[in-house]
Amino acid sequence: MYSDFFNFEVIKTSKDNLARAGLFSTPHGIIETPIFMPVGTNSAVKMLTNDQVLNAGAQIILANSYHMYLRAGCDLIKTAGGLHNWMNFHKPILTDSGGFQVFSLSKLRKITPEGVYFQDPKNGSKHFISPEISMKIQEDLGADIIMAFDECAPYPCNYEQARNALDKTKKWLEICYNAHKNYSQALFPIVQGAHFDDLRRESAQFVSKFDAAGYAIGGVSVGEPTEIKNHITQITAPLLPFDKPRYLMGVGTPVDLINGVKFGIDMFDCVLPTRNARHGTFFTYEGNKIIKNKQFEYDFSPLDKRCDCYTCKNHTKAYIRHLYKTQEATAATLLSIHNIHFLIKLAHNLRQSIIEGTFEKYSSELMDGFLKQEADRA
Amino acid sequence: MYSDFFNFEVIKTSKDNLARAGLFSTPHGIIETPIFMPVGTNSAVKMLTNDQVLNAGAQIILANSYHMYLRAGCDLIKTAGGLHNWMNFHKPILTDSGGFQVFSLSKLRKITPEGVYFQDPKNGSKHFISPEISMKIQEDLGADIIMAFDECAPYPCNYEQARNALDKTKKWLEICYNAHKNYSQALFPIVQGAHFDDLRRESAQFVSKFDAAGYAIGGVSVGEPTEIKNHITQITAPLLPFDKPRYLMGVGTPVDLINGVKFGIDMFDCVLPTRNARHGTFFTYEGNKIIKNKQFEYDFSPLDKRCDCYTCKNHTKAYIRHLYKTQEATAATLLSIHNIHFLIKLAHNLRQSIIEGTFEKYSSELMDGFLKQEADRA
Repeated sequence: MYSDFFNFEVIKTSKDNLARAGLFSTPHGIIETPIFMPVGTNSAVKMLTNDQVLNAGAQIILANSYHMYLRAGCDLIKTAGGLHNWMNFHKPILTDSGGFQVFSLSKLRKITPEGVYFQDPKNGSKHFISPEISMKIQEDLGADIIMAFDECAPYPCNYEQARNALDKTKKWLEICYNAHKNYSQALFPIVQGAHFDDLRRESAQFVSKFDAAGYAIGGVSVGEPTEIKNHITQITAPLLPFDKPRYLMGVGTPVDLINGVKFGIDMFDCVLPTRNARHGTFFTYEGNKIIKNKQFEYDFSPLDKRCDCYTCKNHTKAYIRHLYKTQEATAATLLSIHNIHFLIKLAHNLRQSIIEGTFEKYSSELMDGFLKQEADRA
Repeated sequence: MYSDFFNFEVIKTSKDNLARAGLFSTPHGIIETPIFMPVGTNSAVKMLTNDQVLNAGAQIILANSYHMYLRAGCDLIKTAGGLHNWMNFHKPILTDSGGFQVFSLSKLRKITPEGVYFQDPKNGSKHFISPEISMKIQEDLGADIIMAFDECAPYPCNYEQARNALDKTKKWLEICYNAHKNYSQALFPIVQGAHFDDLRRESAQFVSKFDAAGYAIGGVSVGEPTEIKNHITQITAPLLPFDKPRYLMGVGTPVDLINGVKFGIDMFDCVLPTRNARHGTFFTYEGNKIIKNKQFEYDFSPLDKRCDCYTCKNHTKAYIRHLYKTQEATAATLLSIHNIHFLIKLAHNLRQSIIEGTFEKYSSELMDGFLKQEADRA
C-alpha cells in the first residue's frame, strides 16, 4: 500500500481560489507544498554541488531516467545502491519516465503500441523503452517518486495526434501500474490530451481511477502560449483527486508558479532556473534581468534586494557581471544558486500566504512585480 | 613601516634541512606557513565560490593584475573598495605584477627600458605597463601583498637574455620600491636570473638589500626540468633573509611543495590544481590519477581515502567519473575542491611535521607515495 510510505495532507486552502498548502511525506522526508523541484538531469543539478542545492532550500530534486539509463547506466546506479546513495543525496528524489526525452531528444524514434525505438543521439546506439522497461529503469534508479511512461504530443498537434497519444498513454499507464509493485516508490500517472479540453478531461478522469500517491499533468511547457498552459492547468487540476499532490511537469517561470498554485498545483519542476543562469539571466521580483547588461557594470547591489540566497548575501551584480563576461564558471554557479533559491523561496512564500489567508493579495502583488518589465516595455 | 602591518615569525625549523614553520601576519589575517595559495585569475578561483575556497582551507588567495587591469578594470575594483570588497573575500589576497602574463599571454609586446607595450589578445587594444603603472594598478586593487614588476626570461634562454632580463628587473625593482608608499600593502621583490647560478645569486643578494615584508623567487615553472627548478630554488632560497617569508612563484605539484619546503620556501601558488581538475586529473597520495579511466567506473571509494575534503567526504570516483564524462561542470567543481584542499592540506601537514620534528621522515614517506606511479610505470 502506498499509504505505508506516502501521505499527503492539505493543511490549508485558499478561500478565493484552489490554492492549497500541504505536507507530502515520502520515504526520504517530508515535502512542504507548493514546492519547486530543481532538476538534476545527469544526477547533479547543473553547476552545483549537493551542499549548494540544499542551501538553496531544495526539499526534493529530479533526475532524468532517459539520461541515467543511457549514461551512467542502470546497473551502475543499482550497484551503487540507487540514486540516493549514488548522488549522496538523502532527500526525496523524483525520476521522470524517460518518455519526454525520448520524444524530444532522440533521433530515428519509432513509436509502436508496445513502446518506443530510438537511437542515442551521442553514439547512435539503438534502444527500446516500453512501459515495463521504464518501470524497471526507475526501480533500478530507486527514486521516491517515479512517473508513468506516456506519450507527450507536440505543440501544435491536431486532434487525431492528441487522441492517439492519449490512447497510448492510457494503455501504457495500465501496463506501468501492473508492472510496478514496490510501494516504497510512488508511481504518478500523467494526464495528457494536448490542448483539447475533452481529451484533458477524459485523461484526468482516467488517471484518477488509479490508486496513486500523486498525479501529474504532462504535455505542458512544450511550446504552447501561456494562456493555453494556464487553461490546460485550470481545467485539469480540479479533476484530479483533492487529497493527493498534483504535479505540473516542466513548469516553470515565477509567473507560472503563481498561476499553477492558484489552480491547485502542488509540485513544479523546470530546468529554466539553471539554464537561464548559464545564459546569464536571473529572476528578480521585478521580472527577469540579464547580468551582462551595461547598466550593472557599477551596480554594487545584490541580484535582488529581497533575496536572501548565498549569492545575494555575498555578491554584487557588478562582480557577477564581470565573472560572466570573463566566462568564469563561477558566474553560472552563483546565478544558478540564486535562480533555484528564488523559485523555491517563491513557492515557500506562496505556501505561507495560503496558510496565513493572504494568498490572493500577496500573489497578485508579486504578479504585478513580475510583469512590471513587460508593462514597462509595452 | 611594513612592520606596522606585517610580521613574520619562524616558529620552528627542521634539524635536517632548511624547512621551517612560520606565522605571517597581514592586514587581513595570519597565514600559517608553509602555505599553498589557490589562484583566482579573474578574481574568482575557477569553478568555485568563496565558501568552497574557504572550506577547502584557503588562508590566502591570488588574483592576477594583468587580467583585472584588462577586465574588469582598475577603476571598477577601486570603486568597489578594492579586491577584498569586490570579491567579498576578507582573508589575505596577493596580486602579481602583471609582468608574467604580459610576457606569456600578450601579442605584439615590445619591451623597452621603461616598460612593456602589449596588445590585449582578446580585442587588440593597446596597453603599456611600467613598474610605476604596475604599482598603481596593484594599489588600486588593494591586495595585502603586491609584487614587483619584473622581466621573466623564457626557458631555455641564453646568458645574455638572462642578464638583460635581470638588469631590467633590478632597475624596475628600484622604481617599484620608490613608487610604492603604502605600507599596508607589502611589496615583495622578485629574484630572477633564469638557470644561471651567478645571476640567481646576484639577484638574491640584490633584492635582499631592500627592506621588504617578504621575497619571491620568480622565473621558475616556465618549462624547465624539475632538476633545474629544484637547483634554482636550492641555491636561491637560503640567500634570502631568514626572517621573512619566501615565495616560490607558480609552483606547483605535490612533489614541488615538498622540495620547496625542504629548501626553505614558505609560500606557493599554482593554477595546476584547478586546471588539472578541469581536465579530469586529481591528486592522490599515490600520485596523479585521471578520473575518466575505466578502472574507476564501479569504484565507490573517494578520490583519496586519506583526504577529508568535501568531495572525498561526500562522493565516489564512480559518481565523479560519470559527471566528468557527461560534461557536467559539477565534476570540475568537485575535483577543484579536492585538488586545492589536497595542496593546502599537504602544506599544512608538512608544517605540522616541522613543528613536531618529523619533517624528514614524513616528507620522504609522502614523496615515495607521490612517485609510486612513476616507479610503477618504469
